[in-house]
Amino acid sequence: MTAEHDFYGVIAPVLTPFGDDGAPDAARYLAHAKWLLADGCTGLAPFGTTGEANSLGLDERMALLDALVDGGIDPTLLLAGTGLCALSDTVSVTRHAVSRGCGGVMMLPPFYYKVVNDDGLFAYYAEVIEQIGDKRLKIYLYHIPQVAQVGLSVALVGRLIKAYPDTVVGLKDSSGDWDNTKALLDAYPGFTIFPGSETFLLDGMRNGAAGCITATGNVNARMIRNVYDNWQTEQADDLQAEITAMRTTIQARPMIPMLKSIVAHFRNDPGWTRLRPPFLPLDAGEAQAGIDELTEQYGFELKAA
Amino acid sequence: MTAEHDFYGVIAPVLTPFGDDGAPDAARYLAHAKWLLADGCTGLAPFGTTGEANSLGLDERMALLDALVDGGIDPTLLLAGTGLCALSDTVSVTRHAVSRGCGGVMMLPPFYYKVVNDDGLFAYYAEVIEQIGDKRLKIYLYHIPQVAQVGLSVALVGRLIKAYPDTVVGLKDSSGDWDNTKALLDAYPGFTIFPGSETFLLDGMRNGAAGCITATGNVNARMIRNVYDNWQTEQADDLQAEITAMRTTIQARPMIPMLKSIVAHFRNDPGWTRLRPPFLPLDAGEAQAGIDELTEQYGFELKAA
Repeated sequence: MTAEHDFYGVIAPVLTPFGDDGAPDAARYLAHAKWLLADGCTGLAPFGTTGEANSLGLDERMALLDALVDGGIDPTLLLAGTGLCALSDTVSVTRHAVSRGCGGVMMLPPFYYKVVNDDGLFAYYAEVIEQIGDKRLKIYLYHIPQVAQVGLSVALVGRLIKAYPDTVVGLKDSSGDWDNTKALLDAYPGFTIFPGSETFLLDGMRNGAAGCITATGNVNARMIRNVYDNWQTEQADDLQAEITAMRTTIQARPMIPMLKSIVAHFRNDPGWTRLRPPFLPLDAGEAQAGIDELTEQYGFELKAA
Repeated sequence: MTAEHDFYGVIAPVLTPFGDDGAPDAARYLAHAKWLLADGCTGLAPFGTTGEANSLGLDERMALLDALVDGGIDPTLLLAGTGLCALSDTVSVTRHAVSRGCGGVMMLPPFYYKVVNDDGLFAYYAEVIEQIGDKRLKIYLYHIPQVAQVGLSVALVGRLIKAYPDTVVGLKDSSGDWDNTKALLDAYPGFTIFPGSETFLLDGMRNGAAGCITATGNVNARMIRNVYDNWQTEQADDLQAEITAMRTTIQARPMIPMLKSIVAHFRNDPGWTRLRPPFLPLDAGEAQAGIDELTEQYGFELKAA
């Protein structure tokens, strides 16, 4: 914990394992979450895009959060994804996260309707905040326009901060657009901003970011954390170059199935390769080729906790 | 009912009214649904895009369906929207619709994740169908790529029909792309296909469509029904030209708020103008201008049932 930010460092959007019945596997989920914290994550973001959260039902999402908290994960380390299409569903799931003591929630804009403007999105967030009416609510906005197709403009972020300074406290920028991240960092100093990829970790830290929230944190948190811990040292650029290269290798194949295949391989647990439709597992040969590249190029391995 | 199609004619995706507390207003909803059937609709599609369905919570959606059926609407006339992002939520809501006797369900593809392919979408629908495992389930696929950003290719539709011929029985094509609708009509004769706009009603009927499912059916069902009833007559092209012109006038402004403003105006019920964020009501002057155009150009009015 820093004085400056409640969340900071390297946060992984936790992958969601499924059992052979197709249901989320709470035991594997909890074990992976604990392993991530042991591997260097400073916080966890259950129910992000990487966690197939938008393929999880409301009840499943709440039950998985219960599994983490009841299983002994410190809820103040959890930044739970609670942004759904429907205002009332968002309120329900967010209330649940607040009631379980989550340190924050990561909230997508409503993403089905595409012809919405900043006034409509402002009204949506305002209504969610007012319906919940709880000082413990800490919202981290989630900007991922290439997936959600509905984004959060720099101006809208400013309006929300101004209207709800104690509630709208941070943002994850998964746009992959450094210029946008930089514009947010410049416009709102003190606001907790995470690039959505370790590619921008060092640039982010040099410009006031709080760390990064990154899919590859599921398999590479230790090395990403090393960049975070050493960002002010002379080695920083070299360390950054290595994690950027590793990410490039991982994302050469579809990210979520590739990450699950990596976990399955190194844990010798084939069940981890399962995804929920509309996603399908990676072809086994493709997955192995990706794993071979990682091991050959970087001596990559997933160490047991 | 025709021998050929269980659903046919003019179907309105029912607008959803909200009370001053922001909650869906079941009484106004039921009254509007009954009025639509009296005005010429041959069926109703609760929980479509026009009904702000993706701004409704799961519980709200199920409660509104109960309000219609418990309020005396024949459930075989209901084509309930049940396609959500998450497979398990889709299964829950669809089961509810089947249990209440709905004649069919209209099912969006899972629409959050954008990098999915036909195999993944096929797996999703297959899993939904198999989990529900009920012969009463009749699915009408819902293709609206400009909003959902995930569409259903002509080839995928064919695979689903072939795999589940007694379950995947129809499709609404809201793409606004007549070439796509025509390709579907040509490829799958006997399959129940509805263009998602009355603009394509006559062309559709001449090529084997079952009618249309159209937002403007909420305010103009009588005249659209007249085209459906007379499509084989000499007046057909003139009648079609008039409803096309009226639609053009209505959609010159944002469709959902404009439709709600029309209902509010002619029923003298200002509460009907409410929308749920991220949507906002139309500026009152803009709404009035649209209503003036309709009345001046077409002598438009909403008759009481």
